[in-house]
Amino acid sequence: PPGRKVLIVYAHQEPKSLNGSLKSVAVEELSKQGCDVTVSDLYAMQFEPRATRNDIVGCLHNSEEFNYGVEAWEAYKRGGLSNDLIEEQKKVQEADLLIFQFPLYWFSMPAIMKGWMDRVLVQGFAHEFPNCYDSGLLKNKLALFSFTTGGSKEMYAKGGISGDIRYLLWPMQHGIMHFCGVKVLAPHICFAPEYASEEERKEMLIAWAQRLKTLWNEEPINCSPEWYFK
Amino acid sequence: PPGRKVLIVYAHQEPKSLNGSLKSVAVEELSKQGCDVTVSDLYAMQFEPRATRNDIVGCLHNSEEFNYGVEAWEAYKRGGLSNDLIEEQKKVQEADLLIFQFPLYWFSMPAIMKGWMDRVLVQGFAHEFPNCYDSGLLKNKLALFSFTTGGSKEMYAKGGISGDIRYLLWPMQHGIMHFCGVKVLAPHICFAPEYASEEERKEMLIAWAQRLKTLWNEEPINCSPEWYFK
Repeated sequence: PPGRKVLIVYAHQEPKSLNGSLKSVAVEELSKQGCDVTVSDLYAMQFEPRATRNDIVGCLHNSEEFNYGVEAWEAYKRGGLSNDLIEEQKKVQEADLLIFQFPLYWFSMPAIMKGWMDRVLVQGFAHEFPNCYDSGLLKNKLALFSFTTGGSKEMYAKGGISGDIRYLLWPMQHGIMHFCGVKVLAPHICFAPEYASEEERKEMLIAWAQRLKTLWNEEPINCSPEWYFK
Repeated sequence: PPGRKVLIVYAHQEPKSLNGSLKSVAVEELSKQGCDVTVSDLYAMQFEPRATRNDIVGCLHNSEEFNYGVEAWEAYKRGGLSNDLIEEQKKVQEADLLIFQFPLYWFSMPAIMKGWMDRVLVQGFAHEFPNCYDSGLLKNKLALFSFTTGGSKEMYAKGGISGDIRYLLWPMQHGIMHFCGVKVLAPHICFAPEYASEEERKEMLIAWAQRLKTLWNEEPINCSPEWYFK
C-alpha cells in the first residue's frame, strides 16, 4: 500500500539470473502498489562480509583483546560504526518489510548475505538484552526469505534426503529475524530453476508477482519449534 | 595417531580469545599425538568470502550469464580456480579430520567461514551428482564443529527459547559436511564463555584437550533428521 517501505537485500552476481528477475519483479510490483522500494545489491556494492576491526571508526573500547560484538555495540552507541553499516542500518530502520533474495548456498544464505546479518544487525540497534525475540528492537517489521534451490522439492520434503526445507530455515527465520523481533512471512521458494524449462521459470516469476499483490494481508508464520519440526 | 592429518579452519579476529586458545590447544594436543596439523586462520589470511568471477582464472564457460556453481565446477575440472581456492582444496584433500573453530554468529558460522564453505567445496571436488551424501567425494574424512556461543546452555536446551542446539547444527553438519560424504563427530560447544569466570574458561580448555586425547576412538553421529529433531 502507498507509503509502505520495503528493503530488498539481494545477493546474486548476475542480473540476468532468476534471482535477478525475482528481485526486479518485486521492485516493479511493490512500486506499482505505491510502496517505496530500496535495493541493497550486495555483489554490486562489493559488500564486505568480514566482521573486523575496520568496522569500528576511531579508538576501541578494549584495545587489549578485540571482541567484535562488544566493539560493534559500543561503536553503535557512540555513532562510531563504519559508513557502510550506518547506511544499511538506516535502510533497515525505515523499512516496514525486509525481503532477502538469494540462491541457497549450502542450506543457508551466501556468505556475502551472512556478512550483512553479522555486521548490520548489531547489539543496540537490532537487539539488546533482554530485548530479543518477541521484544527485539526491530519489532513491527516484517521479513521474507525468497530463494532458489539447487535441489528439487522432493529432496527437500519431510522424508527427502535433504530433509524438510523448514529445518534449514530455522537459523535464518528464528535465529536471526525472530531474535531481532521481526515477524516472518512464509518463505518464497523456487525449487531447482536450473532444471526447469523457460516456460516454468516464467511461471515462477508470475507466481511471485501474484503473491506480492496480497502480501500485506498475510499473517506471519509461527516462529516456534512446533512449526518447524512438527 | 602418528601420520594422521588434521586441518583446523579457524575464524576469530583475536588470538587472545577463547576461540584462539581452543585452536592452540588443538594444535598442541594433536601435534603431541604425532598428527600433522595445518591451520587456516581465515581472518589472518584475509580470506575472501564472496563467490565472484574473480575465482575463475581465464575465460568463462558462459560469459553471457554468470552462474557461479557451473563456472567453479568447470574451472575446477580444467585447473582454473584461483590460487587461494586450490590451496585450501589441497589442505582438505590431504586431511583425515577437519576441525572448524569459531564463535557462533546468528545460529551459524561467521560469514568468513561460510565463504570458505561456499568457495572451497566446489562441485567436482567435494561432490558431483550422484556422489553426494553417503557417496560424497570427501568420504573417509571426519569433521568436527567446535564453537563458542553467546547464549547459555539453558537457552539452547530443547524447551529453551533458542531451541535445541542440534536444530542449528543441521545445515552445517548435514547440509554441508554430510552432503560431501564427510562423517561428523559430535560438536564441541563452549556455552557463553563471556559470562564464565577465568577458572571456568580454563576448565573449558582442559576439557577440549581431554576430549582430543581419545577423539580418534569416537564414532560419528547419525546424520539423520531423527538424531537432530527427536
